[in-house]
Amino acid sequence: MNKLNDNWFSESCTMWPGATFSFEVKEVLHDEQSEYQKVQVFNTTSLGRVLVLDGIIQCTEKDEFSYQETISFLPLCCHKNPEKVLIVGGGDGGVAREVSKHPQVKEIVQVEIDEKVIEVSKKYLPFMAVGFQSKKLTLHVGDGFKYLQDHREEFDVIITDSSDPIGPAVSLFEENYFTLMKRSLRPGGIVCSQAGTIWNDLGLVTSTLDYCKKQFPAASYAYASVPTYPSGQIGFVLGSLDKDIIFDTPKLVFTRDQEIEMKLRYYNSDIHKAAFVLPTHVKYLLS
Amino acid sequence: MNKLNDNWFSESCTMWPGATFSFEVKEVLHDEQSEYQKVQVFNTTSLGRVLVLDGIIQCTEKDEFSYQETISFLPLCCHKNPEKVLIVGGGDGGVAREVSKHPQVKEIVQVEIDEKVIEVSKKYLPFMAVGFQSKKLTLHVGDGFKYLQDHREEFDVIITDSSDPIGPAVSLFEENYFTLMKRSLRPGGIVCSQAGTIWNDLGLVTSTLDYCKKQFPAASYAYASVPTYPSGQIGFVLGSLDKDIIFDTPKLVFTRDQEIEMKLRYYNSDIHKAAFVLPTHVKYLLS
Repeated sequence: MNKLNDNWFSESCTMWPGATFSFEVKEVLHDEQSEYQKVQVFNTTSLGRVLVLDGIIQCTEKDEFSYQETISFLPLCCHKNPEKVLIVGGGDGGVAREVSKHPQVKEIVQVEIDEKVIEVSKKYLPFMAVGFQSKKLTLHVGDGFKYLQDHREEFDVIITDSSDPIGPAVSLFEENYFTLMKRSLRPGGIVCSQAGTIWNDLGLVTSTLDYCKKQFPAASYAYASVPTYPSGQIGFVLGSLDKDIIFDTPKLVFTRDQEIEMKLRYYNSDIHKAAFVLPTHVKYLLS
Repeated sequence: MNKLNDNWFSESCTMWPGATFSFEVKEVLHDEQSEYQKVQVFNTTSLGRVLVLDGIIQCTEKDEFSYQETISFLPLCCHKNPEKVLIVGGGDGGVAREVSKHPQVKEIVQVEIDEKVIEVSKKYLPFMAVGFQSKKLTLHVGDGFKYLQDHREEFDVIITDSSDPIGPAVSLFEENYFTLMKRSLRPGGIVCSQAGTIWNDLGLVTSTLDYCKKQFPAASYAYASVPTYPSGQIGFVLGSLDKDIIFDTPKLVFTRDQEIEMKLRYYNSDIHKAAFVLPTHVKYLLS
């Protein structure tokens, strides 16, 4: 075999046994157990800076943009006027960075449970934490689940940028989370939640999509390429209170000038459409 | 860090330093140096059987179908009548398996340089090597580059299913290989070659696409999700002698009945279209 040296970090997760991704570390920038999870930041030889929570890669400097842009602009561009947005999770600031770029968004509320992730991201991941500087943003440290219980009919879009369903994010993949989100939406509102991949977590994809379908008159699954995530992609479940929504057709199409001004590196209106196109083996299963 | 145990295999390649994919091995089924390369087959705990050439994963039982179907049906379904097809490489038999399913294909010629890969695939990878049993197929062991020099204006489609551009496949990524392929095509002919990914090998993608554009009046780049390849996807360069071809619109659209009959697990006409949709950061670079 071909053993890795001591300066390599290997992701290890019970969700994906038998296969793993590893990267070479130049420097351990942070390594600390927070109240909720183990928070690590590495400087690497090929991926730039990398945030790891409880042993699982959350984002790398090389490819984080595809995740942040997709989870943000799929729901925002499906909505006719997404003025007020709630972000649950997203402690690195990357989703706030993208949502704040959208010309129709006036107000962003973010609820992240782990203050340590925010603090560490501000210190070591400024290319994402720049999102916290948006004048549109109000940032709360707390439990997103509890926050939703106290805020009814308030948001046009709710984006759940959670870690995987082990650890502090478990409740964000359960059916009553979708019930709560629905109640917190204004009429015509849309939710978008991280939801695993068809290659590694098909059970998670189908259960999350089923929970969403039970609460929302329209629901769908989409995905983005993120090379450093297991299977090289990540998926999202979207639900809408508008039963006539056509998820794969954005209501707002950015011009090339807007793409440049917004510094979009992944998302465009063709990518939006393609994000909903599924391989044959799951196309009929999920539709 | 999190070192892997002795029964894990880690891919190691100078093309992608600093990051690697590893899998747990249940059994080493084959390990031999052929005339051209190191040929290994593993039985694994999570990916089924895996073929490795010179230390690089070629295909896994879990996800090989997305590669084989895409490299085959993108060019075949762009052609109005792909009666005669040449496969260069493809020693595992997977591309022959897919090409032989296409209803318009009457004759397939395949040229694989390494007889050992064919032999080992027949023994350990029957789910792919089944392609060699097609009555449409004539299989030659030899150098695809040399074969093309002796066969002019003979094929409607040429598919190059090569390993990466180190080792025996180097010549298949050079400009004069595209010159040779062009000469071997009938009028309206199409080529499709494995060509790296936008995430890890952008230089290879652009150089291969440039070589293709110099020889063909129409050329484009597409990709498929293959979780066990570096970056979780693989790309293809397509060239056509028909300057008016619209690559992203298949001329032949399979019905659901045909998809089932052909046992398509990845390819469908929407996937065909989506395969050509590029993220913003490379969309303008490659077009």
